[in-house]
Amino acid sequence: MNSDHLVLEPLTAEAFAPFGEVIQRQGVTPESINYGRTQKFADLARIETAEEGGETSVHLYRSQAVTLPFLIERLERHSLGSQAFMPLHQQPFPVIVAPPGGDPEVQAIRGFITNGEQGINLHKGVWHHYQVSLAGICDYLVIDRKGPHNNCEEWVLDQALMIPAP
Amino acid sequence: MNSDHLVLEPLTAEAFAPFGEVIQRQGVTPESINYGRTQKFADLARIETAEEGGETSVHLYRSQAVTLPFLIERLERHSLGSQAFMPLHQQPFPVIVAPPGGDPEVQAIRGFITNGEQGINLHKGVWHHYQVSLAGICDYLVIDRKGPHNNCEEWVLDQALMIPAP
Repeated sequence: MNSDHLVLEPLTAEAFAPFGEVIQRQGVTPESINYGRTQKFADLARIETAEEGGETSVHLYRSQAVTLPFLIERLERHSLGSQAFMPLHQQPFPVIVAPPGGDPEVQAIRGFITNGEQGINLHKGVWHHYQVSLAGICDYLVIDRKGPHNNCEEWVLDQALMIPAP
Repeated sequence: MNSDHLVLEPLTAEAFAPFGEVIQRQGVTPESINYGRTQKFADLARIETAEEGGETSVHLYRSQAVTLPFLIERLERHSLGSQAFMPLHQQPFPVIVAPPGGDPEVQAIRGFITNGEQGINLHKGVWHHYQVSLAGICDYLVIDRKGPHNNCEEWVLDQALMIPAP
């Protein structure tokens, strides 16, 4: 990685495992339900919302695309709960993450790009950039925690990382 | 309603309120987040999964369409948890429900049709038909409960109700 560039890698379950789950059918053996009419790809995300009296909450996000090159200037984390993003569109979107723990190492920041169908679930405490879209107006279903106590911390990079134009 | 026909009504938040929520942007005032790039339509569904040691679980359903006319022969309910269906496609789909409680009255069964964008969340214990699609192969994100104890009961109608061909 160039010191100030972040190269986006194709998102795979294996590469993303330290950060959470990829919500996708690929690699999952379905059950047949509903009298054979439905394939169920079961239990694809570890939803962590119960800590400190929390509950699961569901939102719709409608996002405007950013223009590349785009500068990654800060990350955030939710120490009390997971956060899942399921696209309601077919546009690849970037997922910028760093391992949970104390302040991230810039060298540990990873950038992934979805295949257009994939959703993601970020485990509790995983550092991440706010959700970014690359094309038009993009809708997402978001599943996270509601409940008492502050659940968002922010960390500002000393030097911004750039997602370059293609 | 003809005694053996079920007419599908347009799905609205008001009409669906006895059964759960419609997951949609319509009628919700968004918050602006992500430095103005995202409109957040917050907390759109009452996710009930914690009873009896339960947790929230997320699935993908891939469903084949049924052909109309289609016979409604049985309903089911999940007394320990809610169940949400968010379409990952733009095809209207039917939602067949009856109020929670004991065995449903046939006269109390309601049929709705989504507008192609709407998702739904069924409250705990609401009687419903299994998820039905009307066009091609349809994918859904499903949010429900995993945990101990049986969470599915079925009720068979004495006389089937028909969703007629358009």
